Amino acid sequence: MSKRLTPKGARTGRRPGTSTTRAEILEAARTSFAELGYDRTSVRGVAAKAGVDPALVHRFYGSKDDLLAAALTVALNPGERIPELMEGDASALGERVVRYFLSVWEQSPSREVLIGMLRSAATNERAAAQLRRFFGREVLGRIAAQLGHEDAELRATLAGSQLLGLAMARYIIRFDPIASADPQAIVAAIAPTLQRYLTEELG
Amino acid sequence: MSKRLTPKGARTGRRPGTSTTRAEILEAARTSFAELGYDRTSVRGVAAKAGVDPALVHRFYGSKDDLLAAALTVALNPGERIPELMEGDASALGERVVRYFLSVWEQSPSREVLIGMLRSAATNERAAAQLRRFFGREVLGRIAAQLGHEDAELRATLAGSQLLGLAMARYIIRFDPIASADPQAIVAAIAPTLQRYLTEELG
Repeated sequence: MSKRLTPKGARTGRRPGTSTTRAEILEAARTSFAELGYDRTSVRGVAAKAGVDPALVHRFYGSKDDLLAAALTVALNPGERIPELMEGDASALGERVVRYFLSVWEQSPSREVLIGMLRSAATNERAAAQLRRFFGREVLGRIAAQLGHEDAELRATLAGSQLLGLAMARYIIRFDPIASADPQAIVAAIAPTLQRYLTEELG
Repeated sequence: MSKRLTPKGARTGRRPGTSTTRAEILEAARTSFAELGYDRTSVRGVAAKAGVDPALVHRFYGSKDDLLAAALTVALNPGERIPELMEGDASALGERVVRYFLSVWEQSPSREVLIGMLRSAATNERAAAQLRRFFGREVLGRIAAQLGHEDAELRATLAGSQLLGLAMARYIIRFDPIASADPQAIVAAIAPTLQRYLTEELG
């Protein structure tokens, strides 16, 4: 994700390249993606928000797409969360996946970062490509690899389609009653769908 | 949908208010929503495309939102199609719904009108409100009314969330393999989900 983890001679930045600065840059990126979406976020804007030189943002995180991947990684933590989901009782996998999804979407600022991302992906092909890359590799790819079925990738994207639709209906277009339904009702309704897509006979 | 079905003394229009003109205005609106989306479509632009006075567009169809409703009605034909879907073997309702959905999305220009609409709804609250209104009343509302369950509206929006996610994943963000899967595979995978949401125990 980052081109170089430890900046060498970060003298061009207005602040020294401490881990505080790294965290501040990431926080500025999260805020920017959440408030402005992908299209209107820039490395320059993130640098200004964090009070550092754009070169330091580039050095720590690389391009805007790398910054987005970093922001999504913080929001979703797929490297830890997906392996956790895939462990444990296989018959409750669908429920664990929908609970994970809600845990991310029902809190700020993850929700706003994801809303900004989804809005941009609906209208901007480069943002859509970035979403395909991130979710394909970090989320759906990890799930598919663990499933190990022959049609695991189709199964993972079917589950992804239900979750994407839930995100659109509940958080973006806000169709009632799904927008205001209790999270428990959402879990009860959606978990068997994901369970079937991921582990049962597809027909 | 239209403020007045028969224009009275349509002398301000450059053409007489024939049914051909009505059809041409609607076709111009469909093209505009498909190519420009909701945000950038205007009554004035539709009038220019159809070669008529904007006053005639207003007289035939009312506002931009009414034009959109007319374009969506042509694309989806819910007044005829939804009652057809709800008749017949209740155990195949999910399959009929997903086949109807694909019949609309797999052909032009319905697909482009819906893509334009969904893109706008993701980013523009007024377009989202219009989508909620149209789908809530014309599509999900008709389904819910026929289902007659106590939780029929939640069931209809759950089915809507899966179809919305399928549209996003297959036609807008284009996640493979769901984007390139054979329609038959989509029907086989999605029909049982809709069947459960609409008719079975939700848990």
